[in-house]
Amino acid sequence: MSTRVGIIGYGNLGRGVECAIKQNPDMELVAVFTRRAPESVSILTQTATVCKIDDIENWKGKIDVMILCGGSATDLPEQTPVYAKMFNVVDSFDTHARIPEHFDNVDKASKEGENVALISAGWDPGMFSLNRMYASAILVDGADYTFWGKGVSQGHSDAIRRIEGVKDAKQYTVPVEAALEAVRSGRNPELTTRQKHTRECYVVLEEGADATKVENEIKTMPNYFADYDTTVHFISEEELKKNHSGIPHGGFVIRSGKTGWNSENNHIIEYSLKLDSNPEFTASVIVAYARAVARLSKEGQSGCKTVFDIAPAYLSTKDGAELRKTML
Amino acid sequence: MSTRVGIIGYGNLGRGVECAIKQNPDMELVAVFTRRAPESVSILTQTATVCKIDDIENWKGKIDVMILCGGSATDLPEQTPVYAKMFNVVDSFDTHARIPEHFDNVDKASKEGENVALISAGWDPGMFSLNRMYASAILVDGADYTFWGKGVSQGHSDAIRRIEGVKDAKQYTVPVEAALEAVRSGRNPELTTRQKHTRECYVVLEEGADATKVENEIKTMPNYFADYDTTVHFISEEELKKNHSGIPHGGFVIRSGKTGWNSENNHIIEYSLKLDSNPEFTASVIVAYARAVARLSKEGQSGCKTVFDIAPAYLSTKDGAELRKTML
Repeated sequence: MSTRVGIIGYGNLGRGVECAIKQNPDMELVAVFTRRAPESVSILTQTATVCKIDDIENWKGKIDVMILCGGSATDLPEQTPVYAKMFNVVDSFDTHARIPEHFDNVDKASKEGENVALISAGWDPGMFSLNRMYASAILVDGADYTFWGKGVSQGHSDAIRRIEGVKDAKQYTVPVEAALEAVRSGRNPELTTRQKHTRECYVVLEEGADATKVENEIKTMPNYFADYDTTVHFISEEELKKNHSGIPHGGFVIRSGKTGWNSENNHIIEYSLKLDSNPEFTASVIVAYARAVARLSKEGQSGCKTVFDIAPAYLSTKDGAELRKTML
Repeated sequence: MSTRVGIIGYGNLGRGVECAIKQNPDMELVAVFTRRAPESVSILTQTATVCKIDDIENWKGKIDVMILCGGSATDLPEQTPVYAKMFNVVDSFDTHARIPEHFDNVDKASKEGENVALISAGWDPGMFSLNRMYASAILVDGADYTFWGKGVSQGHSDAIRRIEGVKDAKQYTVPVEAALEAVRSGRNPELTTRQKHTRECYVVLEEGADATKVENEIKTMPNYFADYDTTVHFISEEELKKNHSGIPHGGFVIRSGKTGWNSENNHIIEYSLKLDSNPEFTASVIVAYARAVARLSKEGQSGCKTVFDIAPAYLSTKDGAELRKTML
C-alpha cells in the first residue's frame, strides 16, 4: 500500500511537493489543505481533494504523513506543533536560530500524539546541514565554509520591492569565485561577508521614479546590502518576466581539513547544488524524508527528529540487500 | 571514558587509523595486532602496545572496537567474520561485487558474538556510496555518475610493475574534464570508459630495458589500460621518489535529475573529494564510524551494518541539541 500524504499550504513549495509525489510511485497525494476557499484552489493531481484547513481533524487515520508547506516566520512555529499531535509531519522550518525552540515544541506535541515529526527538511537546513555534519565528523581538524548561490533570495527581493518607486525586483546572491578557490586551495582563509558573496539586483521602476535615489537606497540598506558589493540593473517589466521569473538557487558546502601524525596532509570535501527550482528541490528532499517518517512511525517510534537522526536507508525505496548490491 | 580501539594490520591504512585516533580525544588506541614479530613493528602511539595477532583473544572485553586494516582480496573476507565473533569491528572491504556475500558472513558472525560490525567504510565504498544513495532518493528521475581521480591507483601501478623491464611505476587515474562538464550541464550523456577517465603512467625502467616495448605492453594491457587513453612517461628513480611518492586520490559523485509536473527543471547534486592521502582519509571515515559502532553496541544492538544503516548523528561527538544548534 502506498504512503498517503497530505499537504498543508499550496504555494510554490506545496506545488513542488505535489510534483515530487508524482515522481514517487510508493507515495500518494490524497488531500491539500488550504486557508483559502477550496473551490478557488486548483491542483494538478486529479485523484486528490482540496479541503478547508478547518476540516483537517476529520482526516486523522486517513493520512500517513502530513507535509507542512507554510512559511517559517509565522506559519510553521504555530502549525507544526498543532498538527504533530494529529499526524506524522514533515516541515522545512528554516529559521536557523529558532530551530532548538521549534524542535522542543514539536517534540512535545508529537510525543503526545504518538507521532513522528521531522523538522527542517530541505537543503539548508537539510542536505547542507548533513554535509557539514558528516564532513566535520570525518575531518576533525578543519574549517567549514558554506556559500549560497547563484540564486534568488526571496527576502532580499522583497526588501527591494518595499522601496518607494520600485514596481518589482529580483535579487540574486552570487558566491565570489576567488573566495571559493581560496577555500578549495586548503589555505583555510578567514573571509568577510563582502569577500564571500555579491548581490545582483534587477529592478523595475515605477513611472517617474528616481533611479539614482533607488539605487542608493538599495546599496546602503543595512543587513541586506550595506555589507556587500551590490550591483543594480534597471530593466523593463517585460525583461524581468522574460529573464528572471525562475527561482533557481544552489550553493557549496566545503570542509577543508588536515590529517597525519603532524597534520601534514590536506583534504577537501565539497558538496554543491545547482538547482533550477529551489522549491521543487526542497520538496524532493521533503518527500524522501516523508517516506522515512512513515517507516519510523510504523516501527512504533514517536517524537521530533531532524536529518541527523535518520539512517540514510530509510529514504530509499530499495531494501538493505538491494542498496548494498547496487549503491555501496 | 574514551572508546578503546584496536588495529589489526599496520600498513598505510593502519597507520592512518592511528593518526586519526590521535585527532579524536574521545578515542584511545590501546593495541596494534600484527602477523609480524611485534618487536619489529614500531608504532607512533607511545601508550599503545604491539601484539601478535595470535594473542588477540586475550583482549576480549578490553577493546571496544577493533579496526581491520587488511586488504580486501584475501585478508578481510577471512578476518572480519572471525573477529566479529569476538569484538565490535569496522572494516573497509572494497570489492564492490563481493559485498553482499561479505555482509552475510559478517552479519552471521557478529550476531553470534552479539557484536556490531560495520563493513565497507571509507570513501568508495563509503562516502561516495552515501552520496549516490541520498542523491538518488531525492532526485528520483535522474542519472548517477562517479568519476575517480586525479589519484594513484594501486592496482594499476602494480600491474605496470609486473611488466618485464619495469623497475618501479606509479599510475594516476584522471577524470576527463570535458566529461565532467557534460554531466554538470544536465544533458545526462552516455559516456564510454574512454570518455570518462584517462590513465597517466610514470615508469622507471630497468637498465637496458626496451622503452617502446614496455610502453606498448602497458597501453594494450586488457582491462587495465586497453580501453583508456593512456600516457606513459619514463622517468628516473629519483624523480619517481621526489614527485610521485604520495598517495593522493579523490573523485566526483554527480547526480543529474529533473523535477516538475512535466520534468521541466534540472538539478545537479555534486559531491567531490580532493585528498592528499587516500589511506589517511579512509582512516578518518573509519574512525568516525568506529564511534558509531561503539554507541550502537552500548545500545544493545548487534549484527552487520553499512553506512546506509547509521544515522549521521552517531558519527559526531556532539549531542543532538548541540548538533541542532550549531550544524542544522
